[in-house]
Amino acid sequence: MAMENGSKRWGFQSNKGLNTAPSIRVRGVINALMEYLNKQDERPLIPLGNGDPSAFPCFRTTSVAEDAVVHALKSAKYNCYAPSGGILPARRAIADHLSRDLPYKLSADDVFVTLGCIHAIEVTLRALGRPGTNILLPRPGFPYYEAVAPQTCLEVRHFDVLPEKGWEVDLEAVEALADENTVAMVIINSGNPCGNVYSYEHLKEIAETARKLGIMVIADEVYGHLTFGSTPYVPMGVFGSIVPVLSLGSMSKRWLVPGWRIGWLVAIDPNGILKRSGVVDSICSCLDLSSNPATFIQGAIPEILENTKKDFFLKIINLLREAVDICYDRIQDNPYITCTKKPEGSMFLMAKLNSSLLEGIKDDMDFCLKLAKEESVIVLPGIAVGMKNWIRISFAIEPSALEDGLGRIKSFCERHAKKQ
Amino acid sequence: MAMENGSKRWGFQSNKGLNTAPSIRVRGVINALMEYLNKQDERPLIPLGNGDPSAFPCFRTTSVAEDAVVHALKSAKYNCYAPSGGILPARRAIADHLSRDLPYKLSADDVFVTLGCIHAIEVTLRALGRPGTNILLPRPGFPYYEAVAPQTCLEVRHFDVLPEKGWEVDLEAVEALADENTVAMVIINSGNPCGNVYSYEHLKEIAETARKLGIMVIADEVYGHLTFGSTPYVPMGVFGSIVPVLSLGSMSKRWLVPGWRIGWLVAIDPNGILKRSGVVDSICSCLDLSSNPATFIQGAIPEILENTKKDFFLKIINLLREAVDICYDRIQDNPYITCTKKPEGSMFLMAKLNSSLLEGIKDDMDFCLKLAKEESVIVLPGIAVGMKNWIRISFAIEPSALEDGLGRIKSFCERHAKKQ
Repeated sequence: MAMENGSKRWGFQSNKGLNTAPSIRVRGVINALMEYLNKQDERPLIPLGNGDPSAFPCFRTTSVAEDAVVHALKSAKYNCYAPSGGILPARRAIADHLSRDLPYKLSADDVFVTLGCIHAIEVTLRALGRPGTNILLPRPGFPYYEAVAPQTCLEVRHFDVLPEKGWEVDLEAVEALADENTVAMVIINSGNPCGNVYSYEHLKEIAETARKLGIMVIADEVYGHLTFGSTPYVPMGVFGSIVPVLSLGSMSKRWLVPGWRIGWLVAIDPNGILKRSGVVDSICSCLDLSSNPATFIQGAIPEILENTKKDFFLKIINLLREAVDICYDRIQDNPYITCTKKPEGSMFLMAKLNSSLLEGIKDDMDFCLKLAKEESVIVLPGIAVGMKNWIRISFAIEPSALEDGLGRIKSFCERHAKKQ
Repeated sequence: MAMENGSKRWGFQSNKGLNTAPSIRVRGVINALMEYLNKQDERPLIPLGNGDPSAFPCFRTTSVAEDAVVHALKSAKYNCYAPSGGILPARRAIADHLSRDLPYKLSADDVFVTLGCIHAIEVTLRALGRPGTNILLPRPGFPYYEAVAPQTCLEVRHFDVLPEKGWEVDLEAVEALADENTVAMVIINSGNPCGNVYSYEHLKEIAETARKLGIMVIADEVYGHLTFGSTPYVPMGVFGSIVPVLSLGSMSKRWLVPGWRIGWLVAIDPNGILKRSGVVDSICSCLDLSSNPATFIQGAIPEILENTKKDFFLKIINLLREAVDICYDRIQDNPYITCTKKPEGSMFLMAKLNSSLLEGIKDDMDFCLKLAKEESVIVLPGIAVGMKNWIRISFAIEPSALEDGLGRIKSFCERHAKKQ
């Protein structure tokens, strides 16, 4: 029968893996952990897995942002398609916003509006990938890079960021890894998953190394201004005259609206290298094939960037500082996990499992699965970000829930402690 | 100097084309035409180039939709990340909405929320593409398919839709083109660029042909319910038990909000072939690597789909019917272009240039460039949709502006007429 014959041709099993992300994505791992939750547990779930505190009322975005979106929507001026790179007022507003922290002024042409930082990463890698090329990624890092790179012909090479040096980039490793086919290195600052904030000096060293190697720097700055320690945030673009920088950012984290899908990809390159070499054209071509953020949300960007009050940012920074203090102190008080450096930025810290003190816990994934099951606490296994037997904890939740979660982690560890 | 050496490596010129769309996209062509506009012309621009009438007050979306979005946004429940396939209430609402026109009930699992129909196309082709496979596309058609296919390993093969048969699919050509590596055929109904609406009988023939060939049908139904002639709209999914159907749709056209970026990709397949064969898994993997529509707009979908009044749809259909009457009549009255069949759906018609009557007009592209320059009217050259020396006219604009535009097209033709 034709149907039977035909249906064989719909078979895609032989193809498994081709269109499957070769690397894990954070949300995939978290979804998997969620399935281990014990439905009998009446305590609230404590979500320390991802960087999205928007469900907690204390982390609600500013009314300035909400009102700007309503205003743009109600104007009926933004129901139409947007140009591929974003609407001009949004591009100009983002250029002005970022220029405040730079020694030169960006223009609207340097800015491309994206669907959050994820889309900025995707477009960047697609724009750079050619057969034979490679890219240098930090380990631990953000696994979406690893998931997208193979689709773009980019071979991935990892350099370490060093826990003993405050998660600074191992620049010797970068030099050893790079060759004539290396197109770029990625840094994440403020750091995901490590909570590091790089000093001016270290960023300058990165720029000089990249310049020497003839590679650009992709600066993932989605957690850029979320710093609360002693090291101030310096955007990589400050060194754009040393080396061309593609800065990736978004409103997701600083305005606590990851679901709005507004980000940007920005060429910070006063010497015009990226334009002359065709990288900017390649970005434009990729965006031409891509979907845009909703036009009316783009329409709200100028008002949001100009009118958000400092008080709002301060309130969030203070909340995160309070949270990281709780998180770090509680971990010091838990002999089964170790965090050597208190985060100064982002929403995360990395803690090492002291496996020799634990019994019946195979590895970080096993730790996280059992923790989800027994304590209704979600944390991310380090393997998802490239570091086996570590865990990534998001401290960006309401402080009392955080205390609760860290208490449950301690009980869990004590219950699984090796008998002396 | 290292910089100089290095900068050579940033060279991407040799790579032109790799990440550049191999086919033209509608918006690229329209942007190119816009650059030919004469800034001295004080008359308003008449945009007959694309299917986006949202700038005209008579084509403003319903307040039900705007209010639903405001309501979702203000609830602060949707600032968070959404799952890859969309939030459950949105998926369920779309399933219910589409089920009304089908002989079986879709479930939320059959539905994936996408960034408009463009994203649904992209995900579909990425999910299906494997080295060696091919896909059958209509000519004329929607060039985004041709632009994305090469990135997904899908070889493109074209079948004609036949002007002399009301733009029906040339099913003999489909049978001749298909082989054991063909994965799917695409139909666009209501038709872009032709304005056709396929009868129940023709859709059934398509289903039976596809079943015989063992290929699925991708039904691009973004203009689905926008019909105003004597042929009623029948969704391809009605024949889902004959052949598996992937239906692509969106709110963009029917609700006149292309800038909101809300669409869907729906498996209509009561026999479960797409699930068993791995196609659904492959779609999920592609979505896992992709960005989502803004969560709060997803949050508004149930309210929009349930509460939009029939009056709103009727008003839009009546406007389009009035517009197509004007457009068709004016073309009958213009001996230099020919439209053989009055559109019954979508926002477009195809008209053939009677080149033998024109002088100094090389082809359709030349016609459109000169028309833009001399008359400030934008229409799409047929070459952009696969038909040289035709033009695609969008009639979805405010009727008096449409009259103005068609009058200018006639003056233009008369001015460029061959002297007898």
